[in-house]
Order: sequence, then structure tokens, then C-alpha cells
Amino acid sequence: VTAGRVTIVGAGPGDPDLLTLAGARALGAADVVVFDRLVDRRLLTLAPAGARLVYVGKHKGGGVTQSTIEALLVDEARAGSHVVRLKGGDPHVFGRGGEEVDALGRAGVAVVVVPGVSSALAAPTAAGIPVTHRGIARSCTIVSGHLVGDDDFDWDAVAQVPGTIVILMAATAAAAVAARLIAGGRREEEPVAIVHAATTPQQRVARTHLAGLRASGCPFPAPSIIVVGPTAADEPRHAAS
Amino acid sequence: VTAGRVTIVGAGPGDPDLLTLAGARALGAADVVVFDRLVDRRLLTLAPAGARLVYVGKHKGGGVTQSTIEALLVDEARAGSHVVRLKGGDPHVFGRGGEEVDALGRAGVAVVVVPGVSSALAAPTAAGIPVTHRGIARSCTIVSGHLVGDDDFDWDAVAQVPGTIVILMAATAAAAVAARLIAGGRREEEPVAIVHAATTPQQRVARTHLAGLRASGCPFPAPSIIVVGPTAADEPRHAAS
Repeated sequence: VTAGRVTIVGAGPGDPDLLTLAGARALGAADVVVFDRLVDRRLLTLAPAGARLVYVGKHKGGGVTQSTIEALLVDEARAGSHVVRLKGGDPHVFGRGGEEVDALGRAGVAVVVVPGVSSALAAPTAAGIPVTHRGIARSCTIVSGHLVGDDDFDWDAVAQVPGTIVILMAATAAAAVAARLIAGGRREEEPVAIVHAATTPQQRVARTHLAGLRASGCPFPAPSIIVVGPTAADEPRHAAS
Repeated sequence: VTAGRVTIVGAGPGDPDLLTLAGARALGAADVVVFDRLVDRRLLTLAPAGARLVYVGKHKGGGVTQSTIEALLVDEARAGSHVVRLKGGDPHVFGRGGEEVDALGRAGVAVVVVPGVSSALAAPTAAGIPVTHRGIARSCTIVSGHLVGDDDFDWDAVAQVPGTIVILMAATAAAAVAARLIAGGRREEEPVAIVHAATTPQQRVARTHLAGLRASGCPFPAPSIIVVGPTAADEPRHAAS
């Protein structure tokens, strides 16, 4: 009996060409691919003929639970398979990769993590925005829009960090996040860029400022990322990939 | 005459397999490759036979200046070449990619940016550390150790953001950064991981806490990255790639 194992692979921000070579190699050696909603289906063609493809996308109001996904990974690996767990972006940037690593570790299943290009950094680039820029944007803070209702989370500190703030999962929380950042001390005039479906043919970019975002919210559905900071005002100067 | 152009490619954190498919394709279509010190030389074999390879590494006390690099990119593109500018990590995360994009734009040279896996996120993963983890580390702030002497930079705000702080270019500034974060309100007991040469065969990881880092500094030479936050205490649970 061959021991199974799991490779957690970051699929990158959207464009399938932004997968890593290591990720492509892992897919090419997969017996089972367990993939999320935001993963481009063309990546599945990198798996061998005969590999099983298991969709475990979460969506509003349902889908597969995290504990079900973790049990599936454990069961498939214990049955001897090389399981590739393909996740959008980077597994450790709001990707719950750490939880899956922990669950596999508790079950005694071998796991490696292949990092991916994070949407948090690639979406700004796709909109022509450097998240850091000498003398202008000297740090980058990545948060989730889901934190906006969390009274334990110190949004004031986030608001006051000089540099760029990137908000993932921002579509529904956009107006509330903008209000919270202004309340925490960011200027109402602080530039904002909103990037929908970054690096895909469906990519859309809108520009406003914090007061505008507070008034109007996000003009796009999920997946949308919001970039707050001095460089977000830049006109698109180049396209990604 | 064919119009030249520049593709700025993020080479990833060290392991050449962490290049993206798009980056590999750009290299395969390069006439000239302009590369930095931290780029694995094996990546240069992806360029066509006959492509010119130009080393422009910066190092302490010398090397090629940023303005010389920008002039080189402009000149080579104007001569009709497809120039691939290969940079370690991601071009827009303390990579000065934005400055090169601006210089090329001023010169009227077409440029695209292919994002890479940032060392800021991949180095923690390589040490078994998720930069975000549900309920434990709810944001990630990326800064440069070079900012420690900058009185205009608000380290207090960085210290107070809940979640993970990743410090790039941290080898020489480590003790001063730790002192600054403690002065700004982070606990002396806050876990710290130090990752040298992440994702390469030379990778080394050390663990301490903020007070220990303040006392002893970074035990490794550059390139080293420091991770501060609750998940930095974790024992390595898996290897990257």
C-alpha cells in the first residue's frame, strides 16, 4: 500500500497562467484534485487523464463546509491517493490553508504547501497599482472585509498604518469598511481602487475615494478587492501578464 | 523596425519552481534578460539560446544604480528588443517595479508586469507559518526593515495592527525593528520567526520572541525575513513546494 499525501496548491489570482511551475507539476501528479469555486477550470486539464476532480466550492447560503473538506482530504489520502487541494490565490492569505494543514497533521497525513500568487498583491498590479512605491506607499496591510462587523478587530490601527490597505472579500462590506477606516483616521479623500475578477477577461476596475466608497459601496459583485492608499489613484499604466 | 517592449517578471521567492507559467513564457520569448542578484541563475536557462543576459544586481556599497537600470531598459526596448526584467519576489512589493514602470511610461515604451509569488508571503509558508489563520491572525502587514530609521514612518500603528507583521530586508535592522515594535505596544513575548533564504536549499529558520530579537538581532545574513505574530510560534508543520 502506497501512503497517500496532500499537496495544497495556490492557484493564483485568476489567470491560469499565474499558476506556478511547482503547482503545475503537482497537478500533473495528482490522483485526486479537490478544487474551489474561484479556480479556473482550465487548470484541471493539467491533471492526468483519469484523475478524479472534486468540486468543493463554498457559496452564500451553502456549499461544502470546511470540516467536510478536511475530512475528504484525510479520507482520500488515507486511501493512498496523492490529493492536490487547489485553492484560489495563496493558501495562507485568507485561504484557510492553515486549518487544512492542521487537520491533516492531526490525522497523520503528510502535507506540503505550494504558495501561489496572492490576489491581495496581484489584483492591485492588474489595475496598475504598486502596493509599495518608494516614498509614497511604504507598507501594505491585507485584511478581510468580513472583519468589519468584528468589534475585537482594531480597525483604527489598520486605518493609521501609512501605506496601502488591501481589503479582500470586500464586495458586500465595502461601504462599512470605508466608514470604519474614516472613523479610524484615514482621510475622506484617500484614493480607492476597486478591482473585480482581477487578471481574468471579466476584470473591471473603478476608482473613487474613501468618502465615495462610504456613500456608494462596491459597484461590482464578488470577487472584488479594494485598494486604499496613495498609489490607488494612479491611472492604469500597464496590464498584468 | 519592430517596436521593443519590456515585461517585468516577478521571479518568486527563491525556488525556481515558484516562477509562474506566464513568467516562464515571457522568458522564453526574451531577446534580453535584465536580472537581479536574488534571482536563481537556473531561470536564465528558460531564455532562448542567443538571448543576452545582463546582470544588474545591487549590493552594499555599490552595484548598478536604479537610474542606470531604467536607462538600460529604455535603451534596449528602443533598439527593438523584447526585454524581460526579472526581479526577485513580486515586482511591486518593495521591488521598485513601480519606478521602472513609470520610467518606461515616460519614455513611451510599452510595459507589462507579471506578478510573482512574494517572499513576504512565501517565506512564512516555507517556515510552516500561515500569515492569516482564522481567529488567530486576522491581518498581515508587510514592511521593510529599511524603514526603521525613518522618523516619518508610523511604527506605532504597525505595532498595533492585530495579526501578522512581515518585515522584509530585515537582517541588519532586526534588533532596532523589534525595539520599535515593543515601544509601539507589541508584547515582548510576541512570537517571532526568522527565515533566511526562504524556499532555497540554504533555507534556515530560527524562532524567538520580540524581546529576544531586540536583544540578539538576526542570527542570519541577508536575505532574511522576520515574521512577528501569534502564528510565528508554530513548529514547522510542512515544507514549501
